[in-house]
Amino acid sequence: MLPLHLQPESHIPLYVQLRDQLRALVHSGELRTGDRIPASRELATQLGVHRTTVANAYAELESEGMIQGHVGRGTYICGAPAKQFTPPPRANGNGGGMRWESIFADERADENLTRLMPDVPPDSIAFITARPSEEFFPVEEFRRCCNAVLRSNGRDVLQLGSSDGYEPLKRVLIEFLRADGLHVRSEQLLITGSCQQAIDLVCKAFLRPGDSVALENPAYPGAVAIFAGARVRMLAVGVETDSRRIGHVGLDLDALESVLLQNRVKFIFVTPDFHNPTGTMLPLAERRRLLEIASHYQVPIIEDSIYARLRLRGTALPSLKALDKSGNVIQIDSFSKIAFPGLRVGWCIGPENAIERLRLVKQSTDLHTDQLAQATLAEFVRRGYLARHMAKMKKVYRDRLEAMESALEKYMPKEATWTRPEGGMSVWVTLPPGFDAGELLIHLRERGVLFVPGRYFYLQNPQPNTLRLGFAGLDEKKIARGVQTFSELLKVEFQKRQRGARSELPSRVAFV
Amino acid sequence: MLPLHLQPESHIPLYVQLRDQLRALVHSGELRTGDRIPASRELATQLGVHRTTVANAYAELESEGMIQGHVGRGTYICGAPAKQFTPPPRANGNGGGMRWESIFADERADENLTRLMPDVPPDSIAFITARPSEEFFPVEEFRRCCNAVLRSNGRDVLQLGSSDGYEPLKRVLIEFLRADGLHVRSEQLLITGSCQQAIDLVCKAFLRPGDSVALENPAYPGAVAIFAGARVRMLAVGVETDSRRIGHVGLDLDALESVLLQNRVKFIFVTPDFHNPTGTMLPLAERRRLLEIASHYQVPIIEDSIYARLRLRGTALPSLKALDKSGNVIQIDSFSKIAFPGLRVGWCIGPENAIERLRLVKQSTDLHTDQLAQATLAEFVRRGYLARHMAKMKKVYRDRLEAMESALEKYMPKEATWTRPEGGMSVWVTLPPGFDAGELLIHLRERGVLFVPGRYFYLQNPQPNTLRLGFAGLDEKKIARGVQTFSELLKVEFQKRQRGARSELPSRVAFV
Repeated sequence: MLPLHLQPESHIPLYVQLRDQLRALVHSGELRTGDRIPASRELATQLGVHRTTVANAYAELESEGMIQGHVGRGTYICGAPAKQFTPPPRANGNGGGMRWESIFADERADENLTRLMPDVPPDSIAFITARPSEEFFPVEEFRRCCNAVLRSNGRDVLQLGSSDGYEPLKRVLIEFLRADGLHVRSEQLLITGSCQQAIDLVCKAFLRPGDSVALENPAYPGAVAIFAGARVRMLAVGVETDSRRIGHVGLDLDALESVLLQNRVKFIFVTPDFHNPTGTMLPLAERRRLLEIASHYQVPIIEDSIYARLRLRGTALPSLKALDKSGNVIQIDSFSKIAFPGLRVGWCIGPENAIERLRLVKQSTDLHTDQLAQATLAEFVRRGYLARHMAKMKKVYRDRLEAMESALEKYMPKEATWTRPEGGMSVWVTLPPGFDAGELLIHLRERGVLFVPGRYFYLQNPQPNTLRLGFAGLDEKKIARGVQTFSELLKVEFQKRQRGARSELPSRVAFV
Repeated sequence: MLPLHLQPESHIPLYVQLRDQLRALVHSGELRTGDRIPASRELATQLGVHRTTVANAYAELESEGMIQGHVGRGTYICGAPAKQFTPPPRANGNGGGMRWESIFADERADENLTRLMPDVPPDSIAFITARPSEEFFPVEEFRRCCNAVLRSNGRDVLQLGSSDGYEPLKRVLIEFLRADGLHVRSEQLLITGSCQQAIDLVCKAFLRPGDSVALENPAYPGAVAIFAGARVRMLAVGVETDSRRIGHVGLDLDALESVLLQNRVKFIFVTPDFHNPTGTMLPLAERRRLLEIASHYQVPIIEDSIYARLRLRGTALPSLKALDKSGNVIQIDSFSKIAFPGLRVGWCIGPENAIERLRLVKQSTDLHTDQLAQATLAEFVRRGYLARHMAKMKKVYRDRLEAMESALEKYMPKEATWTRPEGGMSVWVTLPPGFDAGELLIHLRERGVLFVPGRYFYLQNPQPNTLRLGFAGLDEKKIARGVQTFSELLKVEFQKRQRGARSELPSRVAFV
């Protein structure tokens, strides 16, 4: 039994007390590397607190790298040397079930991703997703395209295909990309199983354990999961989210340059348009400077453009790929946000030799992308259905974004700030220092409203007072109601804490 | 210019002369690690020989690990330390294009896979594929299923899905697996992007660079490509291909046991039914012994069942998974051979904790498998179309297998032997010692017939006198004509060599 003593009457949140006490036990040596700590359910029962209190403390400690959970095996104090599988001596062999866990590798990153998709109670207002709204899917038009390709070309579509992609889709995409100022040859274009796979392929093609990539902090957790799984070192570069400027902020280039000066970096991974989670957009001058820096240090860029076509207002900026003169950029993109995420189809464009390398890796990874999805999407684009659908959805999302901004203006305490994205699917909110979005979420969930705490997106220096509000999946009324509910809770908490801060001095422990 | 002197009048094939002279230059130190050797086209011009002669010599040397080709960069003598990317000093930075190649990792395995899919001249008789015959695809039935799922469930299908698979497909598969004696719960089943991806997921979930797997030799090159890319050590275990016994041969279990005794092995990767490329099938007693060995040494098994449902004659044996009592087996399977390879849908079953681990890796790899393909296949199975299609195809393939065996009996020189598979898509032929299938292919291609030389399948000790004949993609007439053409060439070569062996003693250089 661990020597833990929580004080429910303290204004310091229970999970913060628990986190700090566990941390102290490690620092004092009472808990050591490799020690198992109780499951959250078990410890919650012991301490007489809600399980989420323990889960929250564990999540914090895990994001600090102090503990690590293993599916089905428990949670351990970190830093233990990786266990190697040793065949048992001959004598005690013979059956009794395999110890699969003994060959499990580090699954921490995956769990982070899983935790982002919690069970959503029905009827809740969930600002948690960044996916398109299915009620607007033009299913009937899609079905007609599907019939057309199966009727005209069914055997080809259903037979084994080419690793670089289904030729008619590649042709359609080359045309489609021209509108972005991108003149791409077939050899510079690879069809992927969406952006998630593109990142995985880049990782396999170009990165080895111990290599470094520079990444926005906060970042897309799906990218973090891949790099972590491949034991790639991630170097965090801050993202400016100055809420006084509309949209025009993003990767901190001075910080990037100092990272590149001090490290051998293999790639810069960046989302210049409507960065997930912050919604920021890199201004044109900064795009040019980023390309100069990359070229100067000879570090190629992976440009994640998955949200770029979801510009809801303002003027489009050329992509890094369009501005690039040196062949330094691989751009990854997808149909997932602009059309149908259930079809796993995306693409990447880049220099011919890089694309050829990625094609070979794609081949050994899954041979090729599903051809029915590729063929149907090609037809969907060719008939103009995609353009029509995108126009409609941009209007829908713009209305939702504006509804969210109105609600934030109207209800939020003046101490909170938020980004003003020109596109994408989410707004990034910064609460006053001392607030913990994770803790607020526990209470807010009871009132039927959900968001993603910002700490899930941080590589390092998690800012507990940040959070992501996705607006694309909810109608205006729900958005307004959800923001109102959240704001009310926030005001109550704010008053409570002001009272608490006045009454008890050691509040710094929790809020600094 | 390299000091190479080929003798066209010698009975020693030109490519063998070239291979041996290059090898001698390395051994003498005239060519050293990291040296670039000329492109095959260039060297062919210099030497006045056909480009395939050089390509063949290079392929041999590459399979020995002596040289290594890099796409777009040339071919090098091997063993050079991996180049690390070093940022150039600040002064000489600024543009001029990225040296992408400087960050390329080892692509040798991928190239092996690519080389297996050469350009097939039109009208040729290509025994090279192991894919279903598209002329029999029930496209119309498939189209009806596709319409049904889009009409009834289009929004769900096109929306982001679950990493473990589309629920209706999982339900259908659980039912489908019952016929194999497999009682599987949903938590023990993961939908994958076919077997190729399943191997990739296993590799990412459980293997780290330097880990070892035991693998059949010869093996499926797609698996070799994945393990090689992940820098996993492959330990070759021979496959018995005794042609006097029908079907019942396979992995050499004594050899396996000695590999397990001497190494820390993380997985045994095995295809008990209609192994690709040999077509062999592991007998029941050997299946039991394999499970005992695996359990004894506590090494889990990956059972590749991709061909198991294509039993064309004889009696089905229970799979390793069905026989396994200890939870030691992950079975991977797919719709690619029994239905449509253009849809990338497969599955794997295993112990719950292993499947959960694979699901997390699947999630970070590509989020989930295409849902339109999953939903349509579920409907295709549910309506009984798959069972009907499989019954038809087994009849077609059986006729083709029998046509191939008749032709081999009728035309082949008596010195050649071949396996008698009870299912699958290919027959493994062993020519008399001294014959080189790769060299024969050069001549046979000119006569419009193609096969895959056995050496592409070997992890080590390549047997140049072996080859794979795929029968599933060709009708009976073409099979007979192709085998006849091949046999005639073989007889001519056989006579030539017998004369050559009589006239010149040093023939051993080439044929031993």
